Amino acid sequence: MSNPDDLRASSEAPSPDAYARAGVDIAAGNAAVARYKDVTSQWRHPSQLGAIGGFSGLFELPGDPTRALVGSADGVGTKILIAAEAQRYDSVGADLVNHCVNDILVVNAKPLFFLDYLAVGKLDPQIAGEIVAGVQRACRANDCALLGGETAEMPGLYAVGHFDLAGTIVGIVDRDRVPQIERVAPGDAIVGIPSIGLHTNGYSLARAIVPQPEWRDALPGAPVGTTWLDALLAEHPSYAPAVHAIETVADIKAMAHITGGGLLENVPRTLPAGCKAVFEQARWRVPPLIAELVRRGGLDYTERYRTLNMGIGYTLIVPRGDAADAVAAWPGAAVVGWIEERVAGDAAVVVYPARPSAAATPAG
Amino acid sequence: MSNPDDLRASSEAPSPDAYARAGVDIAAGNAAVARYKDVTSQWRHPSQLGAIGGFSGLFELPGDPTRALVGSADGVGTKILIAAEAQRYDSVGADLVNHCVNDILVVNAKPLFFLDYLAVGKLDPQIAGEIVAGVQRACRANDCALLGGETAEMPGLYAVGHFDLAGTIVGIVDRDRVPQIERVAPGDAIVGIPSIGLHTNGYSLARAIVPQPEWRDALPGAPVGTTWLDALLAEHPSYAPAVHAIETVADIKAMAHITGGGLLENVPRTLPAGCKAVFEQARWRVPPLIAELVRRGGLDYTERYRTLNMGIGYTLIVPRGDAADAVAAWPGAAVVGWIEERVAGDAAVVVYPARPSAAATPAG
Repeated sequence: MSNPDDLRASSEAPSPDAYARAGVDIAAGNAAVARYKDVTSQWRHPSQLGAIGGFSGLFELPGDPTRALVGSADGVGTKILIAAEAQRYDSVGADLVNHCVNDILVVNAKPLFFLDYLAVGKLDPQIAGEIVAGVQRACRANDCALLGGETAEMPGLYAVGHFDLAGTIVGIVDRDRVPQIERVAPGDAIVGIPSIGLHTNGYSLARAIVPQPEWRDALPGAPVGTTWLDALLAEHPSYAPAVHAIETVADIKAMAHITGGGLLENVPRTLPAGCKAVFEQARWRVPPLIAELVRRGGLDYTERYRTLNMGIGYTLIVPRGDAADAVAAWPGAAVVGWIEERVAGDAAVVVYPARPSAAATPAG
Repeated sequence: MSNPDDLRASSEAPSPDAYARAGVDIAAGNAAVARYKDVTSQWRHPSQLGAIGGFSGLFELPGDPTRALVGSADGVGTKILIAAEAQRYDSVGADLVNHCVNDILVVNAKPLFFLDYLAVGKLDPQIAGEIVAGVQRACRANDCALLGGETAEMPGLYAVGHFDLAGTIVGIVDRDRVPQIERVAPGDAIVGIPSIGLHTNGYSLARAIVPQPEWRDALPGAPVGTTWLDALLAEHPSYAPAVHAIETVADIKAMAHITGGGLLENVPRTLPAGCKAVFEQARWRVPPLIAELVRRGGLDYTERYRTLNMGIGYTLIVPRGDAADAVAAWPGAAVVGWIEERVAGDAAVVVYPARPSAAATPAG
């Protein structure tokens, strides 16, 4: 759709305006994170451990210094506005739980328990019950206790029919099983697990691109009978089964959950200095929903790869020699890129449309 | 202000209309809770332990069956609307943390770590930083790690300038130190610790009673220079220091954090069958903010005691013989009621204006 030079994306590229047009300010988000770091660096609990990439926080398990509790909080973003406007309440709870499961999976943690927070403008017990049933269904599928939650009715903050849903997961990991990202080295392969759509990110942008009256229309490129709404509300999967299958046959050096910020901002969170991640778009399929949003929104490469997952939900970095076994272990897994040496001036992530240099590609 | 018969309140009394007028539907809340119970009773994680009164959930500590992790999630309710409209952002974070600390204190748990969830319509890094600084300040004061958090910018769900703040705390307790509410018996004393205002409940009602243009006016009955806003935003205290002082001199049989639902709905959550709690209003002082809301809102007794804390933030049930030592151990603590036998037809909680029967009062 343009010349290859336009397709080079970089996490250091100037901020695009598509997401800003949708009302989400990535620069403000980064500025807020910088302020949080100022605030939290002033005091640190002695049991708090170093975390990787900020997907979750680690805390020494009381009584057992060889293990750590792992906590992560998240919401489902403006996907809930689509769920609310479509009056489909059964999947957002599972979106939330699976998102959190994947965030702690990055450090190899196994879920222990989950707590939800549901805020509404006007409480409808039937709807609240459907939402929490989705939370419980996904908790059970992940062998995770639904330990509690809070439902708040807040007239004046939320419009009638609107709600917000957030949650916190707590898991556990043997500290010697937390991936050591320093082991990542040039030549390693990046294995990608497919996403099934937007998961829980990019919904403000999607709502800005596709007006609500079209949501019940057929989605171009999707199987017959699939509406925009079906694709928009498709459930964020848990990647735990995929990781458990791959870890039995491959040495996993680092993992990333591709959420808000896309490949460009999530993959660098688990890369050591001196390494960059090079992706090759031709190696995977972009889901019809995302392809259509890119087309209709006229999104440039940076916008695509920083706002949307573009078809990859989770990445694993493995030695080049383990890549073939890793992709064979899970249906849909594919080698989607590789690690190269990063020198001054290089972006931490580069996405090429297709192989720029055969010499650098891994086996598999 | 009316004859004594009007002052008898009961948790089984017909629902009042003041809170409903403010847009909060207590009956819908109870119906939602019933649905959650249906949903969660279908599957229970084997490490999940019985909880007390629903203030928090307990989960067996991995590797140590004598201890339990304790989790609780909460928000600060529509107090945030007042903070937002007043542009004072430094206290709501502490309100949230202390609320959560008190919820797990009910089972004697000590905080380990906390995660926050901040949702905004338009992200202002300065304001977000102030809010999280309040979270961190209270975490530090409670020796609790701020392990992580999520900030979500959601245009379309929140108006510009509006935000929501929720959080989850995880603590730990020796299982043999979890209060056994079955030990509560008629004749026990109820010790109350004063509240400093609304804490984090009743704000929708307060906003309905006192229009925003008056918030910067002097609050009747309060110290000179105190505005409605000062009193409305007064920080929810942590009751951990009070409980730690009292537990050294008294046998604490049960505790309750007086949050949404007031004395009428929170105290029964920690009472065994066959016991009722009898309070005597004359034994404690109602803060000026609450007294004025009662007066201006024309709130009847059930409304007062089910929507507002009415001046008691936390209750402890101790043997009659320990009551004098308990109140001496913490400034402001007072014997505010006692436990009586509950027979068929009795309400679980009764609040009298003053002592109805000298025979039933405890020493102290």
